[in-house]
Amino acid sequence: MTVFSKIIKGEIPSYRIAENDSFYAFLDISPLMKGHTLIVPKEEVDKFFDVRDDMLGEWLLFAKPIADAIEKAFPCNRIGVSVIGLEVPHAHMHLIPINTADDMNFSRPKLKLSKGEFEEIQAQIISALVY
Amino acid sequence: MTVFSKIIKGEIPSYRIAENDSFYAFLDISPLMKGHTLIVPKEEVDKFFDVRDDMLGEWLLFAKPIADAIEKAFPCNRIGVSVIGLEVPHAHMHLIPINTADDMNFSRPKLKLSKGEFEEIQAQIISALVY
Repeated sequence: MTVFSKIIKGEIPSYRIAENDSFYAFLDISPLMKGHTLIVPKEEVDKFFDVRDDMLGEWLLFAKPIADAIEKAFPCNRIGVSVIGLEVPHAHMHLIPINTADDMNFSRPKLKLSKGEFEEIQAQIISALVY
Repeated sequence: MTVFSKIIKGEIPSYRIAENDSFYAFLDISPLMKGHTLIVPKEEVDKFFDVRDDMLGEWLLFAKPIADAIEKAFPCNRIGVSVIGLEVPHAHMHLIPINTADDMNFSRPKLKLSKGEFEEIQAQIISALVY
């Protein structure tokens, strides 16, 4: 079972932002920017484009209100999207508030945030969520 | 009119990979990797998540066969996806064949390819396209 499946099942704690029957969204614990969120399908599939067509069709519609909430909670030029997927064999999409392209450079050192800071970010995004 | 709208209309030449009523896919002329392709909606919208819901729902389904063709033509670990959008105010998605996360680092110098090389890459991807 992947680390993301353990997070979805609650075996590993996470800062949950949203979920539905198909997807689970939570804060990346090695964020590039405050508000950096991951979206994973509940079904374990390694490569993004191997995800079932019906779920690929739903993915960005699930992401959109979350992206809007992150942008409201953490004002930025826009929300960047990245799918890399070389580290965990479970498809996932990064949503990152960005002002420059370098804000999405995964070679940069990640932010170190406390539990209290993560909880505050989680609360800010959730309170900005509008469906 | 954005540079991408001019490309879609044929006023600026491009190495076209695929199109349908909603989207146009073509080679990035400043590629990070051989096979680096852009997907843009034919409707001019600045921010990715401001694209209409029906088109967000279609986007990844349009991208999937193109991603599969790039991966077949340019063997790699997988196809990375990136939406940044700070340079051209017309939503666009990068599809990039990657082996390491650094292959998607936009701070890296871009490849300089000749017209002949672009045409060969275009032909290789198109011949690998399966719908």
